[in-house]
Amino acid sequence: MTIKEYIQTNEERFLDDLFEIIRIPSISSKTEHKPDMVRMAEHWCQYLKKIGMNRSEVYPTMGNPVVYAERIIDPSAKTILIYGHYDVMPAEPLELWKSEPFEPVIRDGHIWARGADDDKGQTMIQVAGLQTALALDLVKCNVKIIFEGEEEIGSTHLGAFCEKYKDMLKADAILVSDTSMVSKETPTLTTGLRGLAYWEIEVTGPNRDLHSGHFGGAVANPINELSKIIAQMVDEKGRITIPHFYDDIVPLSQEERDMIAQIPFSEEKYKKAIDVDALFGEEGYSTLERNSCRPSFDVCGIWGGYTGEGAKTVLPSKAYAKVSTRLVANQDHSEISQQFVDYVKQIAPPYVRVEVTPMHGGEAYLCPIDLPAYKAAEQACEVAFGKRPLAIRRGGSIPIIAQFEKILGVKSVLMGFGLESNAIHSPNENFPLDLFRIGIEAVAEFYRFYR
Amino acid sequence: MTIKEYIQTNEERFLDDLFEIIRIPSISSKTEHKPDMVRMAEHWCQYLKKIGMNRSEVYPTMGNPVVYAERIIDPSAKTILIYGHYDVMPAEPLELWKSEPFEPVIRDGHIWARGADDDKGQTMIQVAGLQTALALDLVKCNVKIIFEGEEEIGSTHLGAFCEKYKDMLKADAILVSDTSMVSKETPTLTTGLRGLAYWEIEVTGPNRDLHSGHFGGAVANPINELSKIIAQMVDEKGRITIPHFYDDIVPLSQEERDMIAQIPFSEEKYKKAIDVDALFGEEGYSTLERNSCRPSFDVCGIWGGYTGEGAKTVLPSKAYAKVSTRLVANQDHSEISQQFVDYVKQIAPPYVRVEVTPMHGGEAYLCPIDLPAYKAAEQACEVAFGKRPLAIRRGGSIPIIAQFEKILGVKSVLMGFGLESNAIHSPNENFPLDLFRIGIEAVAEFYRFYR
Repeated sequence: MTIKEYIQTNEERFLDDLFEIIRIPSISSKTEHKPDMVRMAEHWCQYLKKIGMNRSEVYPTMGNPVVYAERIIDPSAKTILIYGHYDVMPAEPLELWKSEPFEPVIRDGHIWARGADDDKGQTMIQVAGLQTALALDLVKCNVKIIFEGEEEIGSTHLGAFCEKYKDMLKADAILVSDTSMVSKETPTLTTGLRGLAYWEIEVTGPNRDLHSGHFGGAVANPINELSKIIAQMVDEKGRITIPHFYDDIVPLSQEERDMIAQIPFSEEKYKKAIDVDALFGEEGYSTLERNSCRPSFDVCGIWGGYTGEGAKTVLPSKAYAKVSTRLVANQDHSEISQQFVDYVKQIAPPYVRVEVTPMHGGEAYLCPIDLPAYKAAEQACEVAFGKRPLAIRRGGSIPIIAQFEKILGVKSVLMGFGLESNAIHSPNENFPLDLFRIGIEAVAEFYRFYR
Repeated sequence: MTIKEYIQTNEERFLDDLFEIIRIPSISSKTEHKPDMVRMAEHWCQYLKKIGMNRSEVYPTMGNPVVYAERIIDPSAKTILIYGHYDVMPAEPLELWKSEPFEPVIRDGHIWARGADDDKGQTMIQVAGLQTALALDLVKCNVKIIFEGEEEIGSTHLGAFCEKYKDMLKADAILVSDTSMVSKETPTLTTGLRGLAYWEIEVTGPNRDLHSGHFGGAVANPINELSKIIAQMVDEKGRITIPHFYDDIVPLSQEERDMIAQIPFSEEKYKKAIDVDALFGEEGYSTLERNSCRPSFDVCGIWGGYTGEGAKTVLPSKAYAKVSTRLVANQDHSEISQQFVDYVKQIAPPYVRVEVTPMHGGEAYLCPIDLPAYKAAEQACEVAFGKRPLAIRRGGSIPIIAQFEKILGVKSVLMGFGLESNAIHSPNENFPLDLFRIGIEAVAEFYRFYR
């Protein structure tokens, strides 16, 4: 039986299994979902046992549990460690979903649900690919699996876990499906990821909401002041103004810029897809450079004062913002985190009190393209897609990838099957069924080449 | 029987009557309270009939109904028109109230409830004062009463009502209790009010929330852009940057500045009361000038992106702000409103779409201190408080006061009994019981002097 035939025969089962997983609303950023995190971990643990791992266990941590499984066949053979995450982002705003976020449906050839791509769909591709390769006796390496439940909140406890279980996690390379492709027709291996630093800013003006008529003009308004702080963070050339922010960045080589310029990309289509009239970013860089190889500063959320119906006049007591920067290779996220805290304190005016709370962060990552696991992934994609994959840096962050390198000393190969249109982190997240099949095939092929 | 004795005898009844009024949650800015507005108007109408008005009626408008009552005793006598509003502000944030906002209680010698001051408490002072004067046969002028239900949302339909019923509302002066005193010991007649213009700004970036990793740095973030727009509105000298904003303002005379400088005021106490380390306002003006005679620009509310628990990374599609300016005498609010819309459109960058919706507005007001009704109010306060009242401009807005002047050609005398510490528009709004008594006395005395 060929890989393709096996997948065709088992596709319905793979989808049923994925749907069971999606139905558990494992939202890591909301404490009320704690029980779902445990349920999800237990579910994966049993599942991995069932598909032929010698050992599969749930490890409690200070946060959400880690699932670890392994199938050791030969201590002298290569070892691949598969990483995935079982937590998902919140589904809000709920009213924009066309079907229930945690009740997956198939419509127009796509799976629709929170986690259909990020990362339940892609994790299932890994697991189904492994099942396929095992069934066809293609697996000649040792396989280890680690699934965490805190990726969307910065993999808070996975670093400590890796430190503690360093020996258990020993591997030659890590294989991850949590990234996306340049287009549906273009298999893509991600060789770079951006890092992240995230803070909450709290600005306090007066100790209570004031009447803006009685106090307005004489007392600083915390929303006005928060706006000024935010407005100062990026200059008119799109450069982030935090002192020393760019100091450690290695300039983009002409070679890499040439490669990026060859990626099929239409700025007009890009603008049209998100319905904006113009783009804004750092002067001197192209859009694809800006969103992958250069840092960014975004306010993820802001709130304060009266936000209900009508026109309430008030000089509010408090204003809040959640802000983040995406970092690039060689920027130290904890250093940047501190620089930002210092900078905000420095520019904050004396007439409001400003608190900055670092929330999470992670380093950026770069992968060498001569790694054996990278080569195997390249060949596997070429077979499954009929096309040699592109090697590109991406703008997203998987903070743990840099930590794996630091703690375990192991590089990760990012063989992702997502698409921009899969709307991860947004309403109506989805995954195309045909890509689900091809992804499983590519993963199964990987085991043929990784020996 | 003296005025004081009558008030003492009837105080409990006056309070009961006020409490009945407070219990109707007549929040004009929330559409779900529409039925309460009608209930409130009907209640006042019946009440005014009961206390001896010849005529009392509820007039429907395109918005909330207007209550009109009159007691005409002699067409050749002077006519006073009493204005009040029966609508209140929303009570949010509810969790900060120590007792239910719409269930008044007496605690520590204060009435605690939404509307205890603004304007149900003060309106009851007017009505109870009139009852007292009527009972003691002190009223020698014609009395007209107009209570509206849209003051907190800009008196949207009262202008048209005044146009329509111009003859019916004919009067020599208007008497209003909706302002506050400099301190509990200092009776205060307000001779100036600030105007108001209020807008909602909607900034749209991409057509959906985007993954800040995949798009951040390449696509403008609407919260960042909204912050930049807001930050530009006031310069480092505290001056509003809207072009031509200050053009029509008549400079403050040295005489008025001298009078303001004599108002008992401690900047240290002021800062301590609201717990701020420093104040911010327009360069070259004192705090009391800034919050009464000079304009201000405040963001009343802001929201956008992810505002829940945890650290969701997102490049949001939308950002919103509710913003307002307080205007001073001679600034035209509709002109300013348009100037702001034009200015925001002008400074908005091409990579986001910005919509500005004017929400409401009103002109500022100035009262001459030689008006007979002003003189009567001055004498009445002197008797009730044992102290000549101060004549000062205040920073709040009662947009209809300027409209009364424009449409009816009648000046208003602002004899208010509020205090800063009454926390109007805030949680735990309250009114001191002793001031409630003295206020009623001052109003009753007014009728002795206004003949």
